[in-house]
Amino acid sequence: MIIMQPGATREEIDTVIETVHENSMTAYANVNQEGAIIGVVGENRSLPMDVLEALPCVKDVLAVTEPYELASRRFHPQDSVFPFCGFTIGGKEIPIIAGPCSVESREQIIASAQAVKAAGANALRGGVYKPRQSPYSFQGLGEIGLEYMAEARALTGLPVVAEVMSEAQLPLMLKYVDMLQIGARNMQNYSLLRSVGETRIPVLLKRGLSATVEDLLMAAEYILSGGNDRVILCERGIRTFETATRNTTDINAIPVLKARTHLPVILDPSHATGHAAYVPAVARAAVAAGADGLIVEVHPDPAHAVSDGRQSLTPDDFARMLRQVKAVAEAVDRRLVPPKSSLPLKLNGGAHG
Amino acid sequence: MIIMQPGATREEIDTVIETVHENSMTAYANVNQEGAIIGVVGENRSLPMDVLEALPCVKDVLAVTEPYELASRRFHPQDSVFPFCGFTIGGKEIPIIAGPCSVESREQIIASAQAVKAAGANALRGGVYKPRQSPYSFQGLGEIGLEYMAEARALTGLPVVAEVMSEAQLPLMLKYVDMLQIGARNMQNYSLLRSVGETRIPVLLKRGLSATVEDLLMAAEYILSGGNDRVILCERGIRTFETATRNTTDINAIPVLKARTHLPVILDPSHATGHAAYVPAVARAAVAAGADGLIVEVHPDPAHAVSDGRQSLTPDDFARMLRQVKAVAEAVDRRLVPPKSSLPLKLNGGAHG
Amino acid sequence: MIIMQPGATREEIDTVIETVHENSMTAYANVNQEGAIIGVVGENRSLPMDVLEALPCVKDVLAVTEPYELASRRFHPQDSVFPFCGFTIGGKEIPIIAGPCSVESREQIIASAQAVKAAGANALRGGVYKPRQSPYSFQGLGEIGLEYMAEARALTGLPVVAEVMSEAQLPLMLKYVDMLQIGARNMQNYSLLRSVGETRIPVLLKRGLSATVEDLLMAAEYILSGGNDRVILCERGIRTFETATRNTTDINAIPVLKARTHLPVILDPSHATGHAAYVPAVARAAVAAGADGLIVEVHPDPAHAVSDGRQSLTPDDFARMLRQVKAVAEAVDRRLVPPKSSLPLKLNGGAHG
Amino acid sequence: MIIMQPGATREEIDTVIETVHENSMTAYANVNQEGAIIGVVGENRSLPMDVLEALPCVKDVLAVTEPYELASRRFHPQDSVFPFCGFTIGGKEIPIIAGPCSVESREQIIASAQAVKAAGANALRGGVYKPRQSPYSFQGLGEIGLEYMAEARALTGLPVVAEVMSEAQLPLMLKYVDMLQIGARNMQNYSLLRSVGETRIPVLLKRGLSATVEDLLMAAEYILSGGNDRVILCERGIRTFETATRNTTDINAIPVLKARTHLPVILDPSHATGHAAYVPAVARAAVAAGADGLIVEVHPDPAHAVSDGRQSLTPDDFARMLRQVKAVAEAVDRRLVPPKSSLPLKLNGGAHG
Repeated sequence: MIIMQPGATREEIDTVIETVHENSMTAYANVNQEGAIIGVVGENRSLPMDVLEALPCVKDVLAVTEPYELASRRFHPQDSVFPFCGFTIGGKEIPIIAGPCSVESREQIIASAQAVKAAGANALRGGVYKPRQSPYSFQGLGEIGLEYMAEARALTGLPVVAEVMSEAQLPLMLKYVDMLQIGARNMQNYSLLRSVGETRIPVLLKRGLSATVEDLLMAAEYILSGGNDRVILCERGIRTFETATRNTTDINAIPVLKARTHLPVILDPSHATGHAAYVPAVARAAVAAGADGLIVEVHPDPAHAVSDGRQSLTPDDFARMLRQVKAVAEAVDRRLVPPKSSLPLKLNGGAHG
Repeated sequence: MIIMQPGATREEIDTVIETVHENSMTAYANVNQEGAIIGVVGENRSLPMDVLEALPCVKDVLAVTEPYELASRRFHPQDSVFPFCGFTIGGKEIPIIAGPCSVESREQIIASAQAVKAAGANALRGGVYKPRQSPYSFQGLGEIGLEYMAEARALTGLPVVAEVMSEAQLPLMLKYVDMLQIGARNMQNYSLLRSVGETRIPVLLKRGLSATVEDLLMAAEYILSGGNDRVILCERGIRTFETATRNTTDINAIPVLKARTHLPVILDPSHATGHAAYVPAVARAAVAAGADGLIVEVHPDPAHAVSDGRQSLTPDDFARMLRQVKAVAEAVDRRLVPPKSSLPLKLNGGAHG
Repeated sequence: MIIMQPGATREEIDTVIETVHENSMTAYANVNQEGAIIGVVGENRSLPMDVLEALPCVKDVLAVTEPYELASRRFHPQDSVFPFCGFTIGGKEIPIIAGPCSVESREQIIASAQAVKAAGANALRGGVYKPRQSPYSFQGLGEIGLEYMAEARALTGLPVVAEVMSEAQLPLMLKYVDMLQIGARNMQNYSLLRSVGETRIPVLLKRGLSATVEDLLMAAEYILSGGNDRVILCERGIRTFETATRNTTDINAIPVLKARTHLPVILDPSHATGHAAYVPAVARAAVAAGADGLIVEVHPDPAHAVSDGRQSLTPDDFARMLRQVKAVAEAVDRRLVPPKSSLPLKLNGGAHG
Repeated sequence: MIIMQPGATREEIDTVIETVHENSMTAYANVNQEGAIIGVVGENRSLPMDVLEALPCVKDVLAVTEPYELASRRFHPQDSVFPFCGFTIGGKEIPIIAGPCSVESREQIIASAQAVKAAGANALRGGVYKPRQSPYSFQGLGEIGLEYMAEARALTGLPVVAEVMSEAQLPLMLKYVDMLQIGARNMQNYSLLRSVGETRIPVLLKRGLSATVEDLLMAAEYILSGGNDRVILCERGIRTFETATRNTTDINAIPVLKARTHLPVILDPSHATGHAAYVPAVARAAVAAGADGLIVEVHPDPAHAVSDGRQSLTPDDFARMLRQVKAVAEAVDRRLVPPKSSLPLKLNGGAHG
């Protein structure tokens, strides 16, 4: 990591980057008002430190002990904040993504979208390719599900988020969705991470069931190193010995991640607990701990959901929870993203690929 | 579990209890305005259900599938709220217990007591018998430490909490402290649990490193079944694969415990994270999730603490944290216990034993 | 699950299968000397049990509570034993797969192949696509690595095993390797599992870091349900709180898996411990517990391996270990696969796809 | 740690020890044919290294990074082997301890003792104080149970092992038993560890449910530092996310412990699996991995055992298992302790305290 002096010119920065490239490594510059930081990555870490230190306007050359660099707050000290369909992610305002586990039918996803919007959600989630444990379980509606989501989007103006399970699904997904989700089971599917790293669509990256915080940051590094810098990390519970809940919410991970990375960090209280009754408490805790957003399972009729009904909130319970979350957000000097005006969003036309 | 009809007389309740006793089991009555619930405990669960159901004013006889009974919210639907040295525990107000890991010297504990009181704490913690991993580490000051704590108590009016590690220490502890702590490593030291169950002093019971929520409730049942009903449960992090923090705070445990038991539930963000930098976020999360209190390590000079310095807050950081926690408490319709007037408390004279 | 009477004819079996198909479910028949068992799978489990029971030669119709069926020992009571390049897997003889973590160069993989063959190994492992935590680490040689492996195979006669990380790599892999490995991080990459399920090449399926035994069997079910019945399960250590070793070998999983499934179960003591010094003890334990094989990392020069050097055995240590394992195998009435004659194997020509 | 030159005299060793004592630390000498190693322990590690190095016959003064010293193989490179009631523990021969979870009656423990002896066991286990999760479960027979065990001992000649749960039980236990067990839940009950450290009776120390290997060695250090050097470590399964078995046998812990400590290491396959069906496989694995013994639950009538029936073997299954274990022991160049002649052992008269 090379720290430039304040006032270094673009030319001086480029000289440093070229020197790095001459040594068969890659450089990424993070330039802001206070100066520039140049991250250097590559297998062979034997850069000529003395040569670099002697270049004009180089203030310091540091060896980084963390195995991730682009994800590191050392490389990028300020929070990553990026605009997304009319609001921002990673800044002071807290977006709420909500919707059913699976897109089950046209009616169900439209009803869900309208209900979560009415309660105050800012984006719609819904699975069309489902990573189910059993090959005999419902595997998602596929493209027809994406079309239903696009329709729900057109009707409500809510941007849509869906999980991509394989590289082969990627071109189709990019035609329909505003944000891709990488599920917990695919957090270390490096081929998939590289593929989404080559797109420019925001990626919600879920922590694996037994992934450490460092593993999660390394997975993010795969996406970032492809040039896609809009990565949102998601804590969704880890696997422990405790069986009273589906997973154990690692609430510690919120401040730990906020200390180590500049990327936005959100929490999924539905998977993290597995029981609708515990979701509101954990959603409030997440925001109190500093989470930058929530992704929540809401279903118009949880008892008849094809998947994850037990952990899905009814629209009423979701609305009640958001009122509590709003109060907690304000107590920690944040605010929920204000509800959207009802103007429909124009259909996403594959501009992200 | 036997549910009496509303308006059952004391005599009718006693008849039920006697019938239970005649069958070699033990009965505990929980009587309140809406009626009475009689918990029945014992190894042999072959009570004559039909005989009991036929007794006057018996509304229902239920078999309980949970292995704990006195700790269960089914037996005792309303929250347990009990007075403690001028405030209440388990009700709307949230007490803060703070102080150093170990009592190191007279000066250190008095300085700690004054600092945590000034910041708004309601009770003083400090270890005089320390469960240290190494037999060669500082093991605590013992009785002299208790005397220092009593002095700090007299000067500040803060009640004192200290860990008891063995039955042999119990008589001495009862002379000095206002609340006993059972540490995580002793959560299943059943001899010790039985001993404190025979006293009438409040007991702060910490969850073991690999104890499930149910294990914790069973440990509480040991104390309750001795007749001591002032048990406070404490989540302090569990052991998982994650190494970024000392333990993993199981924030889910807060709503799970509040659903299953009537006992107050507090959280120890210091042990649950192991790093001072992460303590405030987790303290806020605990209160947002519904915790009934906090126990926090604060040291006048963390860098020179003989134990747990890395996770101890400075008095300034503690005061800053309490301001945040206060705002979160109000957002969830709770309030911190108001700071104490400075009148000294009279020395505890062993009235609990 | 439908159990046919002994002596049921092929025609009677087909009638049952057709009836299942008419109800929009899928049937798989396991026919052997004692009779036939027909597994029925599908989301909608509302088969007309009475209709099926009334069909000729149907002995019993059972609902199965396990979520896997083709992998279940109930469906397939006898062990799955299948021939593989001159020996058998899943029967009395125990094959040893050995080789380096990564194919690093032509010389290295040929030297490895010759060394492990001389010590008694029966197949060669080597990674050409590597699932590395860091995007900046060596990611494998790709196709050139496969060519080197094919050359090593031609020279030594050892069949070759390599990990496939994505569907895109599959056609190429099928041209070169004799057995595919699905790595722990991809155990729940369901797209990949389905893809290899459509091939007819043996698949070594590694247990995920936090996968339960049931999760592993469900992952196998994905492959089996595609029609590929040559699946070998591999215990390679799970993630726990213990940090003295890289993972915790779940030795219990060996007898548990052998009780629940008919599929062969092997163990990888290299990943399961992470330290060469502990590999021989765990390899002996695996065979004593009933494992059907071992896969072991061996490198001609572990100190200079590009990956996993710390857990790789030298050829000498590997040979010493195999002598111990041989003695243990005989003590439990098994035997190692006898070393191969030196006749070269003809190059695999993609017959598996 | 101070390493003396070969041939150092007792006087020279004593001079070193005195110098250590003058610096307020404690020294323990391990003297054998090759020379002497002096372990130095104490909180304050600021010994005058130069002074010590200058003493006659001091070869080397080493700082030890491990937090345990007396338990360390560095301090005591050769295996600890000690005689116990007619055989040795920690050497080439492998003792088998077997018996019921709880002593239930005179008849039951005598029948158990005779059955396990007939099958080849070398010592009798049986609980008289039981650490039960529920305060309402059977808590053990107490002293009467000890009398029954003594009677079983007199009849069969098998030495007896029982768990001590508190310091208060210690004097009574010492009158009756030949080896004390510290249970998993009390592994970090430091008061109890210190108490048994002051006796001279062999102690079987079980690993806690979430104790690391290092935690276990630190617990042993508590006993050793009291001067009791006959400590036997016992792996009995750890708590993980896997629910197919009661605990997860950490088989890796066997070679890890054998590398780090000189103390004998045995395994309890009954608690480590929780299912009788899996006990033989794990018992064989333990011996193959290098365990120095086994402790196994055997009950004359497991279906009617008051505790742990599901994991108890019948005497027939136990005998069958021992034949397998014997073959595995011989394959790794060990042997089971030969069955005892039937001469009764004289009653233990409290000589250990």
